[in-house]
Amino acid sequence: MKKEINRYIDSNKDRFISELFDFLRIPSISSNSLHQSDMNKAAGFVKSHLVAAGADFADIIQTNGHPVVYAEKFVSEELPTVLIYGHYDVQPADPVELWNSPPFEPIIKDNKIYARGACDDKGQMFMHIKALEYLVASNNLNCNLKYLFEGEEEIGSVSLENFIVNNKEKLKADLVLISDTAMIDNETPSIIYGLKGITYFDITITGPSKDLHSGINGGTVSNPINVLCGIIGKLKDEQNKITIPGFYDDILTPSENDKRYLEQVDFDVEQYKSEFGLIETSGEDGYSTLEQISFRPTLDVNGIWGGHNGQGAKTIIPSKAHAKISMRLVPGQSAEKVINSFVDYFKSLTPSSVSVEINAIASCESALTPTDSIAFKAAELAMFETFGKKPIPMRIGGSIPVVSLFEKHLNANSILMGFGLNSDDIHSPNEHFGVFNFLKGIETLPIFINKYGILFQKEEFSQLETKHN
Amino acid sequence: MKKEINRYIDSNKDRFISELFDFLRIPSISSNSLHQSDMNKAAGFVKSHLVAAGADFADIIQTNGHPVVYAEKFVSEELPTVLIYGHYDVQPADPVELWNSPPFEPIIKDNKIYARGACDDKGQMFMHIKALEYLVASNNLNCNLKYLFEGEEEIGSVSLENFIVNNKEKLKADLVLISDTAMIDNETPSIIYGLKGITYFDITITGPSKDLHSGINGGTVSNPINVLCGIIGKLKDEQNKITIPGFYDDILTPSENDKRYLEQVDFDVEQYKSEFGLIETSGEDGYSTLEQISFRPTLDVNGIWGGHNGQGAKTIIPSKAHAKISMRLVPGQSAEKVINSFVDYFKSLTPSSVSVEINAIASCESALTPTDSIAFKAAELAMFETFGKKPIPMRIGGSIPVVSLFEKHLNANSILMGFGLNSDDIHSPNEHFGVFNFLKGIETLPIFINKYGILFQKEEFSQLETKHN
Repeated sequence: MKKEINRYIDSNKDRFISELFDFLRIPSISSNSLHQSDMNKAAGFVKSHLVAAGADFADIIQTNGHPVVYAEKFVSEELPTVLIYGHYDVQPADPVELWNSPPFEPIIKDNKIYARGACDDKGQMFMHIKALEYLVASNNLNCNLKYLFEGEEEIGSVSLENFIVNNKEKLKADLVLISDTAMIDNETPSIIYGLKGITYFDITITGPSKDLHSGINGGTVSNPINVLCGIIGKLKDEQNKITIPGFYDDILTPSENDKRYLEQVDFDVEQYKSEFGLIETSGEDGYSTLEQISFRPTLDVNGIWGGHNGQGAKTIIPSKAHAKISMRLVPGQSAEKVINSFVDYFKSLTPSSVSVEINAIASCESALTPTDSIAFKAAELAMFETFGKKPIPMRIGGSIPVVSLFEKHLNANSILMGFGLNSDDIHSPNEHFGVFNFLKGIETLPIFINKYGILFQKEEFSQLETKHN
Repeated sequence: MKKEINRYIDSNKDRFISELFDFLRIPSISSNSLHQSDMNKAAGFVKSHLVAAGADFADIIQTNGHPVVYAEKFVSEELPTVLIYGHYDVQPADPVELWNSPPFEPIIKDNKIYARGACDDKGQMFMHIKALEYLVASNNLNCNLKYLFEGEEEIGSVSLENFIVNNKEKLKADLVLISDTAMIDNETPSIIYGLKGITYFDITITGPSKDLHSGINGGTVSNPINVLCGIIGKLKDEQNKITIPGFYDDILTPSENDKRYLEQVDFDVEQYKSEFGLIETSGEDGYSTLEQISFRPTLDVNGIWGGHNGQGAKTIIPSKAHAKISMRLVPGQSAEKVINSFVDYFKSLTPSSVSVEINAIASCESALTPTDSIAFKAAELAMFETFGKKPIPMRIGGSIPVVSLFEKHLNANSILMGFGLNSDDIHSPNEHFGVFNFLKGIETLPIFINKYGILFQKEEFSQLETKHN
């Protein structure tokens, strides 16, 4: 099968890339309401390419937020069903001035595709559409396929839970397959089995009812920026422990498997530092960088603003100061519980001379998927076939809200088979995706589907045998 | 004299206001280089109005920054010379969306002139030009007058010291007169005799070389916003004392006069709170609000920014975080010493995992002017004549860099006779200046000049008498 796929890729890769470029040219930034029409355009693009690739049908389904694109390729009731998930929305491109080429005018440089969304997740979800095209063209399908591509992943998948709950029957599947993660490097494939949860807050501190003069009023009123900074400064202690009461209480201790998998990762801290331009790493005391990424919850201020940020000196005490603060959660922690304890704690740190408004604008639970399933086995076999190396199971710091939703509402586990790299700058300027990685995904995914179909039937057969004996 | 002035004002006030409106329509924002041509336009406006009012000549003199307008009205070598200082530049208007009417389209509402610069300082400096017009028209001048109007007060008067040093002979004067401050209220005139100094810093913390993903990298790198907030949180302690080592060491204890004057101020903390929309006041422990304003140094963050500040959730660790931080200094403190100790202290609080850049972008020394001079006496008499009440001497929290420069280089004390109110929102949206205040200034200033001329000659005469006896 591998040889045949590679022949197909060789004859079609220029078209694949050119189609992806068309997709990347649509600035489908879900967080900015000015891009509403681009969101619709991107959804339309996805729908038409699913149909062209051979889906039985594809629908654009409205939600309270951005639409979902849903498609099916049905083969037989005897066969297992794989639900493929991805997202067509992208992060904002700011700071735009740091891009070397415009974020929505894709180009190839050094065999990498540069554009916002090149990797996260347009490039990776488009691999699945091209894998479908191959599987249909080669008449090689031993699974039923369903496709769910949402437009709100970058804003916390706000409408998706409702959509899943209301469409349980439609979405029913034996397995969810997602490509929205990275491998260790192009020679070291990996499969993600653990994701962090997230809670994300919008915070505003209000002091005086209007901007004041820092001379006339300085030293007599609470300055909301000073107050906000003071509170943020207290959210972690000198050991970089998060100080929210009870924050660490429910965390599950990593298992023996977790530790064994972590040992397989060949992590070079010097390379990590140079890759991200760090003077030194810095994190929770008592844990290695890899443990911090894999097993520990984190807290970061993602944005802060207030007062004068232009040229020169403006001597004001601003009326308001704002911050965006998020936490990544690990298995055992509950997003809801963390939200409540964060809000309580933040309020307890706020002096009575100012008012505070805290909104949790996105959250999801962490997820651990089994590594002893036939799906995981199929993923290992497929990657071994195309990379020549067994993939390393990994827990990572990122969050994919849907994974826990699929577990909860569809009772379906996910396989996280991503082909990006951590160096792809997916939330930064100059996001990119290797041409190698894009084509490697298109090569590996049909093999995975095929192997999963075979193993699924084999297992069913052996279960039948057991029953008959 | 008062009756005659009021007649003149009555017949001309509509024109005075209409001329001031023309001045206010020029967006002469000194901190923004996009307004360079507006700065030149404003300087031209000032020059032409000085000449029209009766100055012997008026020049626009280039500096390394924005130009200075200088004019003279010479009467006689026998008479004292008063140097009148003001500034034609204004603060930025942002946040523009909070203005009820456009900041550079002046209007009168409830007998107040609304526009950026209406009070600070275009309205107040224009009173002096109209006072000159009256004094020349009525042929009533017993002082020589010099005018120095700069365009960089709102950015720390960066070019002015050089200008003064290079023009000592030209600027030579017995007294400096400045209207760039506020009175207690329209029934309670006051004269400022103490000003705070200022140091203003632009600070940037750099962590990773680019924005990172808060999931992939969270918990392993120093987030520059968290770091910046942590440092800012340490700049004051729980008692709101500034923690810079040695910061309070050189402060001069308020004199008996200082305390006596302060007691004359009828300060209503409830009114202060409601005026500025405060839940409660907040400042250095152990001092009343009025003492904090008058006698104590302060520290405020005037602006902060970094990371995502748009809609929704962007899960990044930004590469950089920025802040503008300023301190107000009191007599005894040296701006240079504070700059050095702040920079050292800030760096000592910065962890080695990030880099920090600190630039002092503006500074000036505090100033105390004598309250036992004939100039102060003349000011008291003039205000008593026009307000029917003796003005209260006050030390305030604002900074006027030139006052200490005039002392240092011209050996000249200043009289700070301002006609604004603290509620004029001079650095906020909806800055305004009462029509009452504008006209009261035009009424009082010629009387002050006249009384100063008389007292000066009287003192010279009595000194001569003493000498001859």
